[in-house]
Amino acid sequence: MSLPPEFSLIARHFLPLAGEGALALSDDAAVLDVPAGQLVLSADAMVAGVHFLPDDPPETIGRKLLRVNLSDLAAMGAAPLGYLMTAALPKGTTPEWLDAFTAGLAQDQAEFGLAVLGGDTVSTPGPLTLSLTILGTVPKGEALLRRGARPGDEIWVSGTIGDGALGLRAARGTLADDGFLADRYRVPRPRLALGLALRGVARAAMDISDGLVQDCGHLCRLAACGAEVEAGALPLSDGARAALAADPALLPLILTGGDDYELLFAVAPEDAARAAEAGKASGTPVTRVGRFVAGASEVTALGAGGSPISLPRGGWSHF
Amino acid sequence: MSLPPEFSLIARHFLPLAGEGALALSDDAAVLDVPAGQLVLSADAMVAGVHFLPDDPPETIGRKLLRVNLSDLAAMGAAPLGYLMTAALPKGTTPEWLDAFTAGLAQDQAEFGLAVLGGDTVSTPGPLTLSLTILGTVPKGEALLRRGARPGDEIWVSGTIGDGALGLRAARGTLADDGFLADRYRVPRPRLALGLALRGVARAAMDISDGLVQDCGHLCRLAACGAEVEAGALPLSDGARAALAADPALLPLILTGGDDYELLFAVAPEDAARAAEAGKASGTPVTRVGRFVAGASEVTALGAGGSPISLPRGGWSHF
Repeated sequence: MSLPPEFSLIARHFLPLAGEGALALSDDAAVLDVPAGQLVLSADAMVAGVHFLPDDPPETIGRKLLRVNLSDLAAMGAAPLGYLMTAALPKGTTPEWLDAFTAGLAQDQAEFGLAVLGGDTVSTPGPLTLSLTILGTVPKGEALLRRGARPGDEIWVSGTIGDGALGLRAARGTLADDGFLADRYRVPRPRLALGLALRGVARAAMDISDGLVQDCGHLCRLAACGAEVEAGALPLSDGARAALAADPALLPLILTGGDDYELLFAVAPEDAARAAEAGKASGTPVTRVGRFVAGASEVTALGAGGSPISLPRGGWSHF
Repeated sequence: MSLPPEFSLIARHFLPLAGEGALALSDDAAVLDVPAGQLVLSADAMVAGVHFLPDDPPETIGRKLLRVNLSDLAAMGAAPLGYLMTAALPKGTTPEWLDAFTAGLAQDQAEFGLAVLGGDTVSTPGPLTLSLTILGTVPKGEALLRRGARPGDEIWVSGTIGDGALGLRAARGTLADDGFLADRYRVPRPRLALGLALRGVARAAMDISDGLVQDCGHLCRLAACGAEVEAGALPLSDGARAALAADPALLPLILTGGDDYELLFAVAPEDAARAAEAGKASGTPVTRVGRFVAGASEVTALGAGGSPISLPRGGWSHF
């Protein structure tokens, strides 16, 4: 009995990605021993033309989805365990495209130490649609949560802010770029080592996917307080700095644009040195960019001289 | 700061489905204590127009996806723990549609004892695309696997065969039906209690999603043997029996059509009474329909008098 296309497709493209417990993707489900601690679980979906550009290199598309999910684990202070992925593939998806797509995933599996546990491959008359569920572990009671910030706490971020939103413009060809910004848009850097180092240090944490201002608003609402972000304190990459110098009107985009996938966390003032140390120990730049304040759950961005910057919108909704 | 639409949508429609560990869907991930045993994990995707009819009642669409995944747990002998779901919603999806969609999920969550742990909601210019990852548990080493059948073992199935494929025709209006068959297509019955009862009884098991003959072929390939299925022994519902009486040419469809979501399992001849007892104890009809035989990994369907039935195709590929 010859294998139907679905199974040969899985055997050629996805079996090489399968990890321990995946039963060589032959069964109805994976069976997995669970290490000590608690499970951390997250799922994200991406649609061509909505979350990535249809002509993005196939190597980067799967990596982006995997890294977006790894970023969620990082935000919880969790270590990766494995993932399941479903792919709705448009007619005409070629084996060569899938080879490149899975080669990107294989590269990241090696880098981050996890593997595929299962999934599903279906056809769609619509755009390429990917969904990924990631599993991680954290020692019991030590997960970083979004709740927990208090007025007076400092606001810190990892890496540099705004590269993702600027990178989308660069990838679309509407912003000058030497390739750095577009790469930041296509290939997020999940801050896993920093997340682990922030356990017991950060009072609250999340990753920035919808823009710094909007995501900071989530921390505020859960803490019933406000926040002030100092635009002058934002860590900017050379690429972002150059773009901003050429067009100062890009500042609101840097503050509210999505796809940063940096960590945003609350630190008690007395723990500032520990936060800096966590950055150093994990090899991740960390920067204090503002503070939580008593009052309504609003985020104010302060410009030069401490005057509020007018923001056209609260952030970017993935919906 | 007013909530953007994505968050109000989640709060209205998905928060009521959230279970323990979901952190009220406020965080980047769920945090979950894991019971003893091993984790069992499966993921499936469904696309409107491919896996269900776009005008299927919204109450049944989410239930079907959840039940298809529950059926995977049943096939492994696992008990449900929770699930994550991503939904790519076409523009114009109404709150009323989502209310009905999630009401169906809520009904099944109560029936099967599990809840949402997380997920993602995005928009798509294409058809409604859903992906669900389910988690279950099984005592260590007791999961039912697809591998393990041996020549001489009996082939058993649960429930009735062919209703799903006939039900698709009924739902499309091309087959007479009092509603039973279409309902079987839209709302699979995951055989969870039977799966638990078959631990230590069945030598190999899977659920029938791609048609009895094709799925039996999977058990054969993993066991390096063949199989003979007796068409006369197939358990048929009244609806399927009536359809077959009206058109005997439907027999190949019953043997090869997808969407049964019944369990297919191998039983050593000396364990036949235990298999029957597992069916009785779980309240699930079980029927012996053939046997595994030495030889090439081929599935032969035998008609009246033991002559092979010609099958137009090996089964139905979800891809």
